[in-house]
Amino acid sequence: MQQPWDAISFSDLPVREDLKLQRAYGAPQLDVPVRLNVNENPYPPSASLSTRIADAMWDVARNAHRYPDRDAMELRGSLAAYLTHDTGVTLDCSQVWAGNGSNEVLQQILQVFGGPGRTAFALTPGYPMYEEYCRTTFTRLHTLPRTGTFDVDLDLTIATIRALQPDVIFLTSPNNPTGTALSIGEIQAILDVTRGMVVVDEAYAEFRRRGVPSAVTLLPRNPRLIVSRTLSKAFKFAGGRVGYCACAPAVIDAIKLVRLPYHLSAFTQAAARVALASRDELLSQVGILKSERDETVSWLRGQGLEVPDSDANFVMFGRFENRHLVWAELLRNGVLIREAGPQGYLRVSIGTSAEMRAFRAALLAAIDCYPLK
Amino acid sequence: MQQPWDAISFSDLPVREDLKLQRAYGAPQLDVPVRLNVNENPYPPSASLSTRIADAMWDVARNAHRYPDRDAMELRGSLAAYLTHDTGVTLDCSQVWAGNGSNEVLQQILQVFGGPGRTAFALTPGYPMYEEYCRTTFTRLHTLPRTGTFDVDLDLTIATIRALQPDVIFLTSPNNPTGTALSIGEIQAILDVTRGMVVVDEAYAEFRRRGVPSAVTLLPRNPRLIVSRTLSKAFKFAGGRVGYCACAPAVIDAIKLVRLPYHLSAFTQAAARVALASRDELLSQVGILKSERDETVSWLRGQGLEVPDSDANFVMFGRFENRHLVWAELLRNGVLIREAGPQGYLRVSIGTSAEMRAFRAALLAAIDCYPLK
Repeated sequence: MQQPWDAISFSDLPVREDLKLQRAYGAPQLDVPVRLNVNENPYPPSASLSTRIADAMWDVARNAHRYPDRDAMELRGSLAAYLTHDTGVTLDCSQVWAGNGSNEVLQQILQVFGGPGRTAFALTPGYPMYEEYCRTTFTRLHTLPRTGTFDVDLDLTIATIRALQPDVIFLTSPNNPTGTALSIGEIQAILDVTRGMVVVDEAYAEFRRRGVPSAVTLLPRNPRLIVSRTLSKAFKFAGGRVGYCACAPAVIDAIKLVRLPYHLSAFTQAAARVALASRDELLSQVGILKSERDETVSWLRGQGLEVPDSDANFVMFGRFENRHLVWAELLRNGVLIREAGPQGYLRVSIGTSAEMRAFRAALLAAIDCYPLK
Repeated sequence: MQQPWDAISFSDLPVREDLKLQRAYGAPQLDVPVRLNVNENPYPPSASLSTRIADAMWDVARNAHRYPDRDAMELRGSLAAYLTHDTGVTLDCSQVWAGNGSNEVLQQILQVFGGPGRTAFALTPGYPMYEEYCRTTFTRLHTLPRTGTFDVDLDLTIATIRALQPDVIFLTSPNNPTGTALSIGEIQAILDVTRGMVVVDEAYAEFRRRGVPSAVTLLPRNPRLIVSRTLSKAFKFAGGRVGYCACAPAVIDAIKLVRLPYHLSAFTQAAARVALASRDELLSQVGILKSERDETVSWLRGQGLEVPDSDANFVMFGRFENRHLVWAELLRNGVLIREAGPQGYLRVSIGTSAEMRAFRAALLAAIDCYPLK
């Protein structure tokens, strides 16, 4: 016999009105041979690193009856040391905040600086989660399209920001799904005309090409700048769910008003610290992935596809008359990529050489069936 | 030289107006010999369980480059099996949702069912975080005081709920900080008069006295009921940060609209599954803690203190002319308890027998200095 609580449907529940027509976010999690859809690093952490993590976890488990350090000071110190190493800007734990993925950090920023009557700004095409954070925090999101080549129209962006004076500006560099990076000059020009907070989302920063600096270098003279990063991509730690941001200590004081108590588990804090202590090992394939990325861009262009420059571990390409058919044909051949970006475009994460060979073969077969636009 | 971003103060930041006068939540994390302030289980997980957790973590680390199961299906299955065992109500993974502590689950519930123009209801004294979730989600919180003996005035509660028709009702049973439980009849009576969602927060359910049933038994005939629990207390897994709720599958569909993608790390999911597989071991001291709790209630009453019945792993007691002085005197003697509940009351978590002896000695010394009211 079906019980009443199984029979109740979503539409019978007193859900917030603006959520009723929404669908849950997320790429399909499918078990296929070649997964190139969520910008993971294809190389697993080593057995010896896993042993070091497991050893640290034993100690954590023995003390699991106690709450973790609510402020995750040691982890934040490790993250600060890494950022200092990566960018040359000296940082300490008072200038770095961490959460369960940069998702949580970005949502906390909107919980502090957004809200009803407040406005956020983002460029499109961009990371679709900004829209979700805004919806969850009742912040109005104003978007501005990038140019036809997925660059930023700086004059138009500055004019829009001057007129709108958004409370929070999201700049994604390198941008997802286009792969394109902003220059330091562009970011500073935007900082110069806003009274709001500017968040530069650098989830893919470690993959940037030589000569593209991190926005972290702008922090010392821009107190309303926040630069977010993650261990999910270059650091091959997507399963560990650790994101973080660098910002003025006062911003962290503000975030502490909205963070949930003990938001980061003791297991997460310990595993991430071990990972950061082994950063050279974890980042050792970034160079290989960047070469593979550059070759993928060249190869795709050689097939007559439109491909923006990429500073990330993925490449967007198009345009197809019907991208879904191409996507499905690749999937039929065991290669899972992502329908992301504007109509007609697809996005492929950079995998191992073998995975990229499989991708190229599957794409050639798909192009045979479904022509370019 | 001080840099501008270090010099900027909280009050200079464009923080949400209603946050500007707030202070961050949280008990002091002090390193003292006897910590009885945050209702942790004083008994650590065993070395052999820690080894099983570490072994599982090795496998997780080897696959940490991949995102975790976004829907945490296996963990939710393990939690459902435990709840079935504990309550006799047959549940499966489609009826259980998990998050980083019950905090995250409760905030998600307000993100779905609360918001601007919506109202939540709670009894006071109660868990202070409800106020924070409401503030973060812009939900108006209406509170109603409990009686002088910290019971529920059911007639008044029902009349208030009828008139107010809140969107979300929080019922905490056993209640924090009073320790008092609601009867199944009281909860059903409240369910009968509301069109909103009813959340019964059972963080301390495993400590309830014989004959006090769980609200989980009400789920099959009440589709708008949500019962939340945690592994932080009885399960000695506070460091692991796993909370969960049982509810209709449609409620979980709704929560998926607001949860952050991949909110639960692969480490968290795996560690919690190992813990749940060892539930008999982890829960083996619950009986000892309940006896210690009952003895603590009797002893405190014997000292002339007012002490409500407790179904939790803590006891509230009073009244003191100045509770802060008593609290500080205990801390001076190495015993950290909590200033919680109404003015004049303190709350002590139940520790080991040795810790409770230290507490009793320190309290007697403090009472000598600072009289009861």
